[in-house]
Amino acid sequence: MITSTANAQVKNLIQILNKPKVRREQGVFAVEGIKMFLEIPRHRLVKTYVSEKFISNPQLSTYVEKCDYEVVNNEVFRHISDTVTPQGILAVVKQKELFTEDMFLKDRGNIFLILEDVQDPGNLGTIVRTAEGAGVSGIIMTKNTVDIYNPKVIRSTMGAIFRVPFVYTDNMEMVIKTLKDKNTVIAAAHLSGKRNYFDEDFTGNTAFIVGNESNGISEKMASYADLLVKIPMRGKVESLNASVAASILMYEAFRQCEKCEKKI
Amino acid sequence: MITSTANAQVKNLIQILNKPKVRREQGVFAVEGIKMFLEIPRHRLVKTYVSEKFISNPQLSTYVEKCDYEVVNNEVFRHISDTVTPQGILAVVKQKELFTEDMFLKDRGNIFLILEDVQDPGNLGTIVRTAEGAGVSGIIMTKNTVDIYNPKVIRSTMGAIFRVPFVYTDNMEMVIKTLKDKNTVIAAAHLSGKRNYFDEDFTGNTAFIVGNESNGISEKMASYADLLVKIPMRGKVESLNASVAASILMYEAFRQCEKCEKKI
Repeated sequence: MITSTANAQVKNLIQILNKPKVRREQGVFAVEGIKMFLEIPRHRLVKTYVSEKFISNPQLSTYVEKCDYEVVNNEVFRHISDTVTPQGILAVVKQKELFTEDMFLKDRGNIFLILEDVQDPGNLGTIVRTAEGAGVSGIIMTKNTVDIYNPKVIRSTMGAIFRVPFVYTDNMEMVIKTLKDKNTVIAAAHLSGKRNYFDEDFTGNTAFIVGNESNGISEKMASYADLLVKIPMRGKVESLNASVAASILMYEAFRQCEKCEKKI
Repeated sequence: MITSTANAQVKNLIQILNKPKVRREQGVFAVEGIKMFLEIPRHRLVKTYVSEKFISNPQLSTYVEKCDYEVVNNEVFRHISDTVTPQGILAVVKQKELFTEDMFLKDRGNIFLILEDVQDPGNLGTIVRTAEGAGVSGIIMTKNTVDIYNPKVIRSTMGAIFRVPFVYTDNMEMVIKTLKDKNTVIAAAHLSGKRNYFDEDFTGNTAFIVGNESNGISEKMASYADLLVKIPMRGKVESLNASVAASILMYEAFRQCEKCEKKI
């Protein structure tokens, strides 16, 4: 049993929870809580840590029966935990990124998201959750987007982080080329968009660009777009929350693809 | 100039910022920051407080020229402020609620939201912001919904709190009657909904019921609905974030009404 916060594994866990750089170097991330633990694909599980209290509960202990786990005393577990009321289970999981070309799941009707520098962990988590619901084929993020392995992002994905393919890129030009080579229309939600998003056709392959919370989409990024679309807004609203804008676009593409399939 | 945290006005401000009950009793709420201050309808402004630093800035001081304001020293202002980096301006504003019957803006195409016990301030704020964008006629909330005058809610509305009509009710039955008397279809996003939301007609008057983040919609509330609609979800997603679900529904009604108007 680990009983000291000076333990090397404990120190490493805290680094993994708090430092994107450490996560990147080790190719892992940390996942907390029972519900999220049960979502982890077993082949990606590196190591599991449970509190004394957790392992002494007969019902809870069955969850880790077949895992390589280590017990941590309650006090040290609280010290490690990123949450206010720790559930007593934390796992180290292997990262997994895909290449854009591997994200195409079907001939047409693939929906992609391209996120440019989205900063709020809650927004990114919500986007990933909604993306799974809308059947999105993949999420492409700029290097300056908040780290998807940030504990706050992971929590708000509600498990979708294990199921939605994604990639970080510092070569957007190449990603765009890959997308266009496979007949993907690049659509950017942009204030200077002339036509409403619901007047465009998203039944082929579509990639929606969603910009940063404060600055929107950069000119460079907008230049990649085949379409600038407008989300119409009444009143004095200047913009929508990034996760709301992304959700409206994804579900419009979902709606159109559903309607389209029914007609065929 | 106010120089002590023991000042009666300071004490009251802190109560207004932190206690829903005090806000209710006094019929006011507090608004922080320059951008939000500029959104306040002048006839609802009760009193403005600015920091020494704020008022000594010639450009900023013009904002409060015509207001009844009081200067607070920088230290006391930081003590009052609800934000990490206070901008030095905080205003007390009159609350304003409408009756449901006064929310009908037009003969048809009115969109309403009914929120049942939504708890997260960020979710409520985002819903209000999106509601303004989607041209929603009004938001009706159960008494157990988080207080819309909570500073976190206000911030995330981005000013929409001053422009979207809303009401809290403990008599939902009466509200539903009022809505139905004016030919409003009550639609609830519900897991047991059979048809997809985009297969329903929202071009008349529509009220969408959106439930609590953890428990969804109560049976009582679902019984008021004329329609139970499904937001289809791929993958293993069990539900969407409350503000995302609300946004998808509002914008679908917006889309349908736009298309409908164009045809006429």
